[in-house]
Amino acid sequence: MRILAIDTSAVCASCAVLENGRIRAQSSTNAGLTHSRTLLPMVDAMLQNSETPLSSVDCFACSVGPGSFTGIRIGIAAIKGLCDGTDKPALAVSTLEGLAYNLLGQTCLACAVMDARCEQVYTALFRVEGERVTRLTDDDALKIADLGEKLKQYDEPIVFVGDGAEKCEQALGYPAAPPLLRFQSAASVALCAERNFDEDKLLAGKDLQPVYLRLPQAERELRAKNARN
Amino acid sequence: MRILAIDTSAVCASCAVLENGRIRAQSSTNAGLTHSRTLLPMVDAMLQNSETPLSSVDCFACSVGPGSFTGIRIGIAAIKGLCDGTDKPALAVSTLEGLAYNLLGQTCLACAVMDARCEQVYTALFRVEGERVTRLTDDDALKIADLGEKLKQYDEPIVFVGDGAEKCEQALGYPAAPPLLRFQSAASVALCAERNFDEDKLLAGKDLQPVYLRLPQAERELRAKNARN
Repeated sequence: MRILAIDTSAVCASCAVLENGRIRAQSSTNAGLTHSRTLLPMVDAMLQNSETPLSSVDCFACSVGPGSFTGIRIGIAAIKGLCDGTDKPALAVSTLEGLAYNLLGQTCLACAVMDARCEQVYTALFRVEGERVTRLTDDDALKIADLGEKLKQYDEPIVFVGDGAEKCEQALGYPAAPPLLRFQSAASVALCAERNFDEDKLLAGKDLQPVYLRLPQAERELRAKNARN
Repeated sequence: MRILAIDTSAVCASCAVLENGRIRAQSSTNAGLTHSRTLLPMVDAMLQNSETPLSSVDCFACSVGPGSFTGIRIGIAAIKGLCDGTDKPALAVSTLEGLAYNLLGQTCLACAVMDARCEQVYTALFRVEGERVTRLTDDDALKIADLGEKLKQYDEPIVFVGDGAEKCEQALGYPAAPPLLRFQSAASVALCAERNFDEDKLLAGKDLQPVYLRLPQAERELRAKNARN
């Protein structure tokens, strides 16, 4: 099975083709350009250079959030287009669960943490045992101090992974994943999609939905203003 | 400083642009195609997509061996061409030292091991302390059992990295790096080149030389045959 995955949930845009557990090709760009500009040309070059016809892809996976609101929307829009053009299905991957797959092959609790500002992180906890990743908690937005309280119940070694890892390491003392494994990547999204592959979870591209966990700031401010009036 | 690095020392070809410690863009292909066919189109697409003009690159780095004889020759030839076309210098990186940079951010001895067949590995040992990598032994070709004897003198935790890691883990008991950090990559070649940057080590592209550690099999057989005659 060939899975084409993308990640646009943060400043780095990436794409990857996974084929039966092996990364056939991948690319990433972190040059301060908008994902809407770089993503599809990067996918196109990756497919051409690895001689992977778009028609040979069996399904398209995408991190659907949490993450940058604009980034997530660009990623989902691109996958909708690819699904529509090829008549192939989509797989939605939690950005946090994708991050846990960065630590594949290790034995630890992977605590995925993405900076959500306001002293909060988007977070979820996973147990990584070699090639197996098991989700322990749902995706959530928590204050870092509250996350620290929750983590106290676990005796296993805990590793922070994601762009909030350094901040959480400083605040809570558990180590951050090494830099080359710390951030979102399409390769991990593809690995997550493959391991969790389930016909019942396949979606039509048009049914992909972003998972923001929190309302966009503009909506939060509007609701607060309306509540005051 | 912008460094463009490539790695073609094994089956996966990769390229990366590093800019002051940050990976600006990277691509890899592992689709069973020859590096001579995929490498330069992949570099070209990476540069275009990340809006990195070739003229903005300050130097070109390349893993010069050990590794696949044909792969290393293709990589060096490509870098010679890029240096010649841009009038910029080259940096030679030991494939084994590049591998040690996969473990950046950790605290361990990184034992780089590449399968050299005949029960041998190409190997070198490095101390990784967070952001610092220190070479402890020269690049060498050793029998796995002899490597095991040499490693006994070290008390620190040892991690095998490279395509010989699984075999060495089984034979000697020290753990292999997790799969996503195990293999050669242009990003690590670029990180190694940047950390060791030294004006005195810059080369004209034409002076880049492969470092095979062992003679090619054809030459070994020829010499053995000549010795018999």
